[in-house]
Amino acid sequence: MNAWFEKHQATLDKALDACEKRYSWTAYTESPSSKIHGKEIPAAGKARFEALLGKDYPLQQPGEIGRTGAEVSPYTQEPLGITYPKVDVEALYQSIRDAMPAWRDASVETRMGICLEILDRCAAQLFENAHATMHTAGQSYIMAFAGSGANALDRGLEALVYAYKAMRDVPQSADWQRTFGADGAAKLEKKFKLMPRGISVNVCCATFPLWNGYPALCASLATGNPVVFKPHPSGILPVALVVSVCREVLQEAGFDPNLVTMVADTREEPATMQLLEHPDTRIIDFTGGPTFGEWIEQNCRNSLVYTETAGCNSVVVESTDNLAGMCKAIAHSLCQASAQMCTSVQNIHIPSDGILVNGERVSFDEVAAALVDAVETHLADPKHAAFLCGTLVNDTIYQTIERLTLEGEQRGRLLRRSGPYDNPGFPNARTATPLMIAVTQKESDMYREELFGPVSFLIKGESAQSCLNAATGDARERGAITSHVYSVDAEFLEEAQDAYNNAGASVACNLMGMPINFAAAYSDYHVTGLNPAGNACLTDLAFVASRFRIVQRKIMVD
Amino acid sequence: MNAWFEKHQATLDKALDACEKRYSWTAYTESPSSKIHGKEIPAAGKARFEALLGKDYPLQQPGEIGRTGAEVSPYTQEPLGITYPKVDVEALYQSIRDAMPAWRDASVETRMGICLEILDRCAAQLFENAHATMHTAGQSYIMAFAGSGANALDRGLEALVYAYKAMRDVPQSADWQRTFGADGAAKLEKKFKLMPRGISVNVCCATFPLWNGYPALCASLATGNPVVFKPHPSGILPVALVVSVCREVLQEAGFDPNLVTMVADTREEPATMQLLEHPDTRIIDFTGGPTFGEWIEQNCRNSLVYTETAGCNSVVVESTDNLAGMCKAIAHSLCQASAQMCTSVQNIHIPSDGILVNGERVSFDEVAAALVDAVETHLADPKHAAFLCGTLVNDTIYQTIERLTLEGEQRGRLLRRSGPYDNPGFPNARTATPLMIAVTQKESDMYREELFGPVSFLIKGESAQSCLNAATGDARERGAITSHVYSVDAEFLEEAQDAYNNAGASVACNLMGMPINFAAAYSDYHVTGLNPAGNACLTDLAFVASRFRIVQRKIMVD
Repeated sequence: MNAWFEKHQATLDKALDACEKRYSWTAYTESPSSKIHGKEIPAAGKARFEALLGKDYPLQQPGEIGRTGAEVSPYTQEPLGITYPKVDVEALYQSIRDAMPAWRDASVETRMGICLEILDRCAAQLFENAHATMHTAGQSYIMAFAGSGANALDRGLEALVYAYKAMRDVPQSADWQRTFGADGAAKLEKKFKLMPRGISVNVCCATFPLWNGYPALCASLATGNPVVFKPHPSGILPVALVVSVCREVLQEAGFDPNLVTMVADTREEPATMQLLEHPDTRIIDFTGGPTFGEWIEQNCRNSLVYTETAGCNSVVVESTDNLAGMCKAIAHSLCQASAQMCTSVQNIHIPSDGILVNGERVSFDEVAAALVDAVETHLADPKHAAFLCGTLVNDTIYQTIERLTLEGEQRGRLLRRSGPYDNPGFPNARTATPLMIAVTQKESDMYREELFGPVSFLIKGESAQSCLNAATGDARERGAITSHVYSVDAEFLEEAQDAYNNAGASVACNLMGMPINFAAAYSDYHVTGLNPAGNACLTDLAFVASRFRIVQRKIMVD
Repeated sequence: MNAWFEKHQATLDKALDACEKRYSWTAYTESPSSKIHGKEIPAAGKARFEALLGKDYPLQQPGEIGRTGAEVSPYTQEPLGITYPKVDVEALYQSIRDAMPAWRDASVETRMGICLEILDRCAAQLFENAHATMHTAGQSYIMAFAGSGANALDRGLEALVYAYKAMRDVPQSADWQRTFGADGAAKLEKKFKLMPRGISVNVCCATFPLWNGYPALCASLATGNPVVFKPHPSGILPVALVVSVCREVLQEAGFDPNLVTMVADTREEPATMQLLEHPDTRIIDFTGGPTFGEWIEQNCRNSLVYTETAGCNSVVVESTDNLAGMCKAIAHSLCQASAQMCTSVQNIHIPSDGILVNGERVSFDEVAAALVDAVETHLADPKHAAFLCGTLVNDTIYQTIERLTLEGEQRGRLLRRSGPYDNPGFPNARTATPLMIAVTQKESDMYREELFGPVSFLIKGESAQSCLNAATGDARERGAITSHVYSVDAEFLEEAQDAYNNAGASVACNLMGMPINFAAAYSDYHVTGLNPAGNACLTDLAFVASRFRIVQRKIMVD
């Protein structure tokens, strides 16, 4: 078993170093290009995905009492026709309980080796998983391969780094000796053992099922806890593929595959609550909407709860020396994955008297026009638009767009209407381009929550200071996962960074020439846990240190 | 300020090493003997304690709206006559909020240095605090100096070690660079900042007010959180003395002393709930009864909650080669601090057909008689009895003893009645010697909870296996902080250790020639957090890692 630990030790060591120094690094290949992979591997991955369609997904789990699953491709708007086990949770949990002792008693290196091997095999499975992610989450092929694939695997490895650090902080044994009064020396041999918490439920979201899926899996499994995946009903297949890998690796290593299982469901017959409220559930990782996330935080008292939800990510624009570069960068965020990312920008705060560009005043309307132009430029080439925007994960986003279009006309000014774009490969794809609305801060009830999908606001503030106050207040009270400031004024920049940080939000300044939604594994602490957009950072000691406990035994020796 | 960090760095480094290797070490002098300290220092400490009696305690805090406090000495049964500020919590919290930003922005080394200096000055204050602890918690002088003094300070330093480890795991800055597509290299300078959670409420218990008090103080304060002490109404003075030191050190270092405050109360007018339920309270450390502890765990959703409560600590006796040594060790636990310690033994499980001693069978009754004899031996010398037993923290323990005496007569057999012992220095001391009751496992409702005070059970099991099953089942379901096994059978010992560990309890084997209640700082992981006797270990990364979060700022550079 430890052979796997040795096989992957160089990767782990490099990841430990990257986390310590926080430079740019990836353990997995980010590009699906045939220049790297050749033609056969990508084609074989696609074929493997296609072979799964319209069939019972091959997952043998205890407690199967039927089949479930009703995924529909956002690209074809046709059902995938795949069914998954419908599970009797009590029967499943009994099997999981049976599987736990051997895993609890395995060495840290054994468990780490198995988790590293799982990530490695998932990396080899990225092509079929990218197609699965496209046709469930609606991501573009490249995003599905990179963001939901390699980048997410990096986050999983990062969680392993912290699990390993926390576990190796506990020695396995100690010799202890001291004298009490006249009784002579007391000598004790002590042994310390890591103990898991119990069953860990991993609730994945619809749009990026594995971005939190891999880290939560790795953090819990490495520390000895069995993991039950609860995929979103619209995005089961990407998760199922990972579950299959986990079970295969565990079984090869001589462990019970039921250490990693999946409970699939449909919107009509949800299974989540039964898992969350089960008395044997001891850890919950949740990615999804803030309302349900907060409910879990408040009510699931039997479990450790780690959430990543959503807020209203903002940009404060004060000044720039590169208007085109800035607008291109912000517009990229409005388009990328149809703004369905947890790092997508929604609220763009601009002073009513405009901003300084290279020392020249540029009006609010001119900045707004430049942003709209930048969006149009991103969308001009249909192939590029398809790669950038992907599709909408569900129909309700159209309702949001429609509602906000009406409201925007009444309460503000529509800068850009949303409409479908033609996806070259998929004529039936569910698509939408950015809706952009100009409002004043008086309309804050419109934008002080996440409006999931390609909806953004250009918010007129009385001054840059007023913009900053509004944006940071929203971050504190309504949550933020990413925040941006554009300014060439050193004093304002410093003040803005302090204001965001003190609101419990991380902040990025003057980003351009890169996708500003990008959160770098091993470098960016993703989610602060200090504002309503989540209570946990996926990538620190706190994410792992409580997932296990320590028991000891000491024995007196002569 | 960092001068203090440098002053204490050797101590911190040694403590880091001790925690890593878990050998025996102490940073503070455990003995109050005048052979070590001379005569003047102990006398001066006593004089300083006496000078506080019958007066307003000198603590200037915002929001004082009167005076409170009704402590009574368990040694004299006279009121101490000391009053403390009665506090308007809203006004106090406002002052604390004002104090927070400067502390949040201080460097890790500054905060660590101040915490180390606080512990150092508390060590210099141990004589007066020992007298304060005697006359509130009821401990003997030596226990008050060692257990509630030096040993508790060690636990505080231990918490600082883990806080330091967790904080220095986060780098202060990083350079990051990568290329996205055709856009050229993106270079970012990143800065990472530790952010406290918010106000930390430290609820101390009556019998060992500082055992958890120092660790919770250090864990929260070092990580940037202000600390509000909520002493037990019967044990305010030991806490007040520490609060005074904290405020003095903070002020000398140029920080607002309101970073450490105290809210005193009386049993009749309790103030705890207001603190626990205040929306600005973000961390709760609680030591006390399991019922209230569990209520806090279930209901204080706004805060991180760390509890140490109580269970029913057990001994399983299977065999021994040293009956006298074993009985002396167990009897010591029944007497020490009148069994009011979280590590005191209550339930002694012995097979009905007795045990093997050096290969000879010794009956249940003979073992019971030997245990009673060992208790008598410990009590034979009044001076030693006083040193060992101390006094009862309150009158309700007499009611428990009375009730259990009656019940024991009816449902089992009284092996030893409790009675007062004569405390040489204090004729009015509230004292009680161990009540020992023989029962069978059928009477488990009598002993499956903590009976606070000197009450113990010798529980007849059908076999050693039955004893072990009962004891470990109780640990799992009702909690345990310490557990003991006596056996010379290697196979049974291994099985027993596994059974306790798998029940979420730590276990000690064949301890004798030392106080078996002793939990060693830097070596023993105190409380597992896996059974109902508490949800936290005071001495691991999980105790500190969530007390702060991380925010970052990144800025694009050329």
